[in-house]
Amino acid sequence: MASQSQSQPPAPPSKTSALAAPLSALGFELEEITPKKVSGRLHVTENCVQPFKVLHGGVSALISEALASIGAHMASGFRRVAGIHLSINHLKRAELGDHIFAEASPVNVGKTIQVWEATLWKIDPSNSNIKTIVSSSRVTLLSNMPVPEHAKDAGEMLKKYAKL
Amino acid sequence: MASQSQSQPPAPPSKTSALAAPLSALGFELEEITPKKVSGRLHVTENCVQPFKVLHGGVSALISEALASIGAHMASGFRRVAGIHLSINHLKRAELGDHIFAEASPVNVGKTIQVWEATLWKIDPSNSNIKTIVSSSRVTLLSNMPVPEHAKDAGEMLKKYAKL
Amino acid sequence: MASQSQSQPPAPPSKTSALAAPLSALGFELEEITPKKVSGRLHVTENCVQPFKVLHGGVSALISEALASIGAHMASGFRRVAGIHLSINHLKRAELGDHIFAEASPVNVGKTIQVWEATLWKIDPSNSNIKTIVSSSRVTLLSNMPVPEHAKDAGEMLKKYAKL
Amino acid sequence: MASQSQSQPPAPPSKTSALAAPLSALGFELEEITPKKVSGRLHVTENCVQPFKVLHGGVSALISEALASIGAHMASGFRRVAGIHLSINHLKRAELGDHIFAEASPVNVGKTIQVWEATLWKIDPSNSNIKTIVSSSRVTLLSNMPVPEHAKDAGEMLKKYAKL
Repeated sequence: MASQSQSQPPAPPSKTSALAAPLSALGFELEEITPKKVSGRLHVTENCVQPFKVLHGGVSALISEALASIGAHMASGFRRVAGIHLSINHLKRAELGDHIFAEASPVNVGKTIQVWEATLWKIDPSNSNIKTIVSSSRVTLLSNMPVPEHAKDAGEMLKKYAKL
Repeated sequence: MASQSQSQPPAPPSKTSALAAPLSALGFELEEITPKKVSGRLHVTENCVQPFKVLHGGVSALISEALASIGAHMASGFRRVAGIHLSINHLKRAELGDHIFAEASPVNVGKTIQVWEATLWKIDPSNSNIKTIVSSSRVTLLSNMPVPEHAKDAGEMLKKYAKL
Repeated sequence: MASQSQSQPPAPPSKTSALAAPLSALGFELEEITPKKVSGRLHVTENCVQPFKVLHGGVSALISEALASIGAHMASGFRRVAGIHLSINHLKRAELGDHIFAEASPVNVGKTIQVWEATLWKIDPSNSNIKTIVSSSRVTLLSNMPVPEHAKDAGEMLKKYAKL
Repeated sequence: MASQSQSQPPAPPSKTSALAAPLSALGFELEEITPKKVSGRLHVTENCVQPFKVLHGGVSALISEALASIGAHMASGFRRVAGIHLSINHLKRAELGDHIFAEASPVNVGKTIQVWEATLWKIDPSNSNIKTIVSSSRVTLLSNMPVPEHAKDAGEMLKKYAKL
């Protein structure tokens, strides 16, 4: 969105925008991407809050489903996966300006069904080792489906950024 | 994001950006806003999909939680509400270019706890009376809490746009 | 448990004990059994309550999963089904002595995944037309799986009692 | 139900029947009872299965809600608690004859809302150290409510059996 000077090519899209466009639109940045763990960070801006200036619970839900989907896609050997259910408990509030760390890991990787857990914490600004849980969720995914011809790219993109 | 010509003032923020900024960031537009029903629409753009070019389940979750929260806020008489749980079933896929209609209504409005149901459908482009269910969810909210001083605005903003 | 006089054969098992033994152990009785609706009734006895003498939420969950499973089994054409997720909101309390009516119906019957909704109400003892919602749930089931040889009976039993 | 010889008094009710009657009706036995962990065991009998001879998912849900409720009651300092939501993922099947171990522990103990996690495993009969996950659930409870006069007993009973 920023204007580019003529002498520089446009910045390539970040891995977040390539793998989870809606997360990118809210300012979330993916970090670790492996079949056992997917993580990332969000700075809570005006775009992410409800009118009480608290992190919108729906944003926590979106982050959770996104991290779990990326992980399940890898854990299924890059076959197609589809989220069929998300259940999220909002535990403590995060506020405008807070820094969020999010991480998803598998609860059970079955052949047909995978269940992933995703957790969000807010990081204490004065000591990044202190974190408070914000939400905890379970994502249920139908797994191991054939990849449609027009979506072969999806797996290639993920392989490019993942640590396998 | 579009440049404004000098002779025109910037457009005022839409009601969606005022009431649910994250929805606005993804292109969702609120329509009806009452204590018994909250609805709106989304055109599924590149910003809303996962790499298989299907509406991201996390976006459906965000829409559901947002509509339910707005409704519960009104149904509690503009006291503070906080989502504590969201459960969503993703039923059928919507694809890039599809038009989504979403609506939330109360299942039970208790004094302490409210439960709202939110449903998303995709609209048949050739006949808007034909709609296919995309997701169905339940949002559980803690209700009837005092409004903190710094957030008095939240209710005023909602009263401005709601039909009471 | 009642003693049988010598001249009478033991009563045949009820349809509830044949189709959902755990429900039968708690006193629940199945009524309507069709692929579009499964219903039944429970009198809230000491066996069904928690120490506050209120219907145990886990009993509501058991009833919900049981009704949905029977319905999904029929709706899949008597193929094997397996519950993969249950989400239940407990809305209002029912007390010792209350009469409960429960009903499940499909939200979406897909080829691979079915989602059913189950609702419990308590019935006003002075007017059975007045009912108050007790809980509302969603059951997600994996559907349309082959029936193992040793479980061919399960479908036959259900066909015997169902109205198809 | 067993006949008592004349010289012996009837056996006192077990702690399971006193604290969670519906669990007792299905054969479940409570073991550890503390504010940080509640556990117990079930032998999967005909009373606990669906017609495919697999542990009924509703029984797993009932066990989960019961263990979480007992724990939350203790963690709230024996104030009244009420389950408001249960979400359970059924991960692997347990069969007739299997031995189940179940355990609940807190995810977050807030003043108003508590969230507990409950897990069921089946135990390998030849080596009790080997266990396979059967289900994983989250129970959300409204906490810290006043105890009604007629239910003062509930806390006393729990204190009698708990390890505080």
